[in-house]
Amino acid sequence: MSTLKGACIIGQSGGPTAVINSSALGAIETALKNENITQVLAAKNGVVGILNDELFDCSFEDPAELARFRNTPSSVIGSCRYKLKDCDVDDTDYKRILEIFKKYNVRYFFYNGGNDSMDTCNKISKYMLKVGYECRIMGIPKTIDNDLFGTDHCPGFGSAAKYIATSIVEVCRDIGSYTVPALTIFEIMGRNAGWLTAAAALCGEVGCAPDLIYLPEVDFDIDKFMSDLSKKIQEKAQVLVVVSEGIHDKNGKFISEYGSDLASTKDAFGHSQMGGLAQTLLGIIKTYDNGKYSKLKARGIEFSLLQRCASHCASKTDVEEAYLAGEAAVLEAVAGNTDKMVAFEREYVDGKYVCKTKLVDLSVTANAEHLVPREWINEEGNNIKHEFVDYALPLIQGELENTFENGLPRYPHFKGVFAKDVK
Amino acid sequence: MSTLKGACIIGQSGGPTAVINSSALGAIETALKNENITQVLAAKNGVVGILNDELFDCSFEDPAELARFRNTPSSVIGSCRYKLKDCDVDDTDYKRILEIFKKYNVRYFFYNGGNDSMDTCNKISKYMLKVGYECRIMGIPKTIDNDLFGTDHCPGFGSAAKYIATSIVEVCRDIGSYTVPALTIFEIMGRNAGWLTAAAALCGEVGCAPDLIYLPEVDFDIDKFMSDLSKKIQEKAQVLVVVSEGIHDKNGKFISEYGSDLASTKDAFGHSQMGGLAQTLLGIIKTYDNGKYSKLKARGIEFSLLQRCASHCASKTDVEEAYLAGEAAVLEAVAGNTDKMVAFEREYVDGKYVCKTKLVDLSVTANAEHLVPREWINEEGNNIKHEFVDYALPLIQGELENTFENGLPRYPHFKGVFAKDVK
Repeated sequence: MSTLKGACIIGQSGGPTAVINSSALGAIETALKNENITQVLAAKNGVVGILNDELFDCSFEDPAELARFRNTPSSVIGSCRYKLKDCDVDDTDYKRILEIFKKYNVRYFFYNGGNDSMDTCNKISKYMLKVGYECRIMGIPKTIDNDLFGTDHCPGFGSAAKYIATSIVEVCRDIGSYTVPALTIFEIMGRNAGWLTAAAALCGEVGCAPDLIYLPEVDFDIDKFMSDLSKKIQEKAQVLVVVSEGIHDKNGKFISEYGSDLASTKDAFGHSQMGGLAQTLLGIIKTYDNGKYSKLKARGIEFSLLQRCASHCASKTDVEEAYLAGEAAVLEAVAGNTDKMVAFEREYVDGKYVCKTKLVDLSVTANAEHLVPREWINEEGNNIKHEFVDYALPLIQGELENTFENGLPRYPHFKGVFAKDVK
Repeated sequence: MSTLKGACIIGQSGGPTAVINSSALGAIETALKNENITQVLAAKNGVVGILNDELFDCSFEDPAELARFRNTPSSVIGSCRYKLKDCDVDDTDYKRILEIFKKYNVRYFFYNGGNDSMDTCNKISKYMLKVGYECRIMGIPKTIDNDLFGTDHCPGFGSAAKYIATSIVEVCRDIGSYTVPALTIFEIMGRNAGWLTAAAALCGEVGCAPDLIYLPEVDFDIDKFMSDLSKKIQEKAQVLVVVSEGIHDKNGKFISEYGSDLASTKDAFGHSQMGGLAQTLLGIIKTYDNGKYSKLKARGIEFSLLQRCASHCASKTDVEEAYLAGEAAVLEAVAGNTDKMVAFEREYVDGKYVCKTKLVDLSVTANAEHLVPREWINEEGNNIKHEFVDYALPLIQGELENTFENGLPRYPHFKGVFAKDVK
């Protein structure tokens, strides 16, 4: 492979996770040390920062502060949800990106994100090839949804899974300390892929297995759900139900869109109140079968954004693998690879989980979705089999130290010096 | 003081916290070592366990497992929400309690709970005095609400405050990584006292101060709120609002009740069940002023039960003080005190926070509420002053180690041998 010298740009895109900054750190530290990379730039708010010429020069940052990227949630350099147009339809953005790449002699581009971000990578890569600008482009995977195609798992998933399992175990113990019958419904992110919802099954390892778990991989049926639920209510006092936000009926209609007596309640101003899926299900339960369960003490808990930014409960394994992905992206690009996404594959060495990186084509992974295998969901479609637990347990191992200072999380002081402002 | 020999009962009551088991541990370990205490009994589900003769004999427990009470959320021995009747009206329960006390020669009773539990303590104490049964009764404070009268602060508050501040900081960073304008409303527990909601102000220590904070100590006005909010929306892209579930208008009507005719279910103590406030506010915002803000990206996050059981994010200071409270209850009772609650007072020794225990009369603390001082809330009633931060910061210091095992929280294996079953 030919040696390619020039600057690199690192960008983050899409919904943050607890560990995307660890991937950024892996890429930044590796790039700063690499003799073929002449300048390490971090795009403010992803591709938007390239378009705006807002590129931080990482050489101005204090290495000790940079190191704190490891345990910082969200995106330190900023993320975006910007979709590039098809360049055959409108190549304005591409021309601007090329202009910026030329301005700083950018020869490496590393983009950290999920499906859409890999699509962005792929589009830029194809454009640069078309116009004959030599540039190596690598995707770094990131998503709590764990739905990227071509990789065993995704950085971000392990930490979100650990947070969810930990929180459900805690709530399970909390409600279990009473004798009063109670139903608790947890709503977890995941529109099409139920990986994160399945993480609730990890609670079974410490005796807090949820009673019912519903993933979007299986069509959801209200009557079947009510039948499942009433069996559980007869069996035990405290019932734990976990649902993915993306559960839908056989026609593909989201259950969260069903509405309910609860959701259609009007307030004093005549405002309709719309809750999330958990609230909708509670409304359905309360009115089902002539209000048979109307007096049941029931509560919905939605993890909302908490599940994707809970760095204080990050998986050390996830943090380290995220770093590894960023590092691999730089090393593989310098070695001559381009138009790939870094992916993980697992091995078991003497029965011990080991994670290695490999490369997959961006065109393969962009916009394809990796779902929970049907055979890891029980036949009834209302719980998770142990195959999933075996898969997920290695990903949540270990905890970070020294993430707090003076009782609160301690994050990096990022100077953020724009390359354009440096004389 | 006369020496009193006999068994003791330790009970937990009301909503659990992340540290009530640490208080139980302080009482159990201290009692097991004390020569005047002949048997250490733990009531299953509080006073209900006494009525049912379900009393665990703690001498059967493995000390190493008991030690794990320190970092176990919820109530290991079980809690309850059982209200004793006035003994002048119906003394059935009291007679039964006396019967059980006599059966096991119980001479010490330690009850760990909030306002209602102190009331239960007080009633039992008065009854025992009336019937001439010698017994020393001590309340051990516990509540995330921090609203017990006569104590500087309450065990459980520091950990809940730390969890809330940590989580809000994480979400603040998450939403701050985008450029899209967004409103996030956090709903926090606290019916009449806003201590826990005020804890959101701790986020300011790491640059994530919420824009608006509303406590139940100040009447809430929708028009004023909308005016506050629109100012903030004009100033900045991401607006963070924190509200206590108990905010109410000047007539005392809960804002959460504005939103729906949800059956105002009352619990055994006659308290309205709260929840759904964030959704109600979002509904109000969306339709206010002819839908001026109907397109604003807005999200509600309700901490729900998560905030009271997040042992994985417990404050070490809180855990240690909770232990201290349990220990002090036993030592003070053996020394001859009765009909008291253990309370905290703070000192600053060479500028360093120190927490000491003292005793307050149960009759003083039972059912009285300690609210956030009005002067710690800003004049406008929409944010918290630094006096509160100075007060709360020492309470969230430090983190626990070794709370995880195999990636998940590790809790005690509690055998739970009933004294009545021991030959």
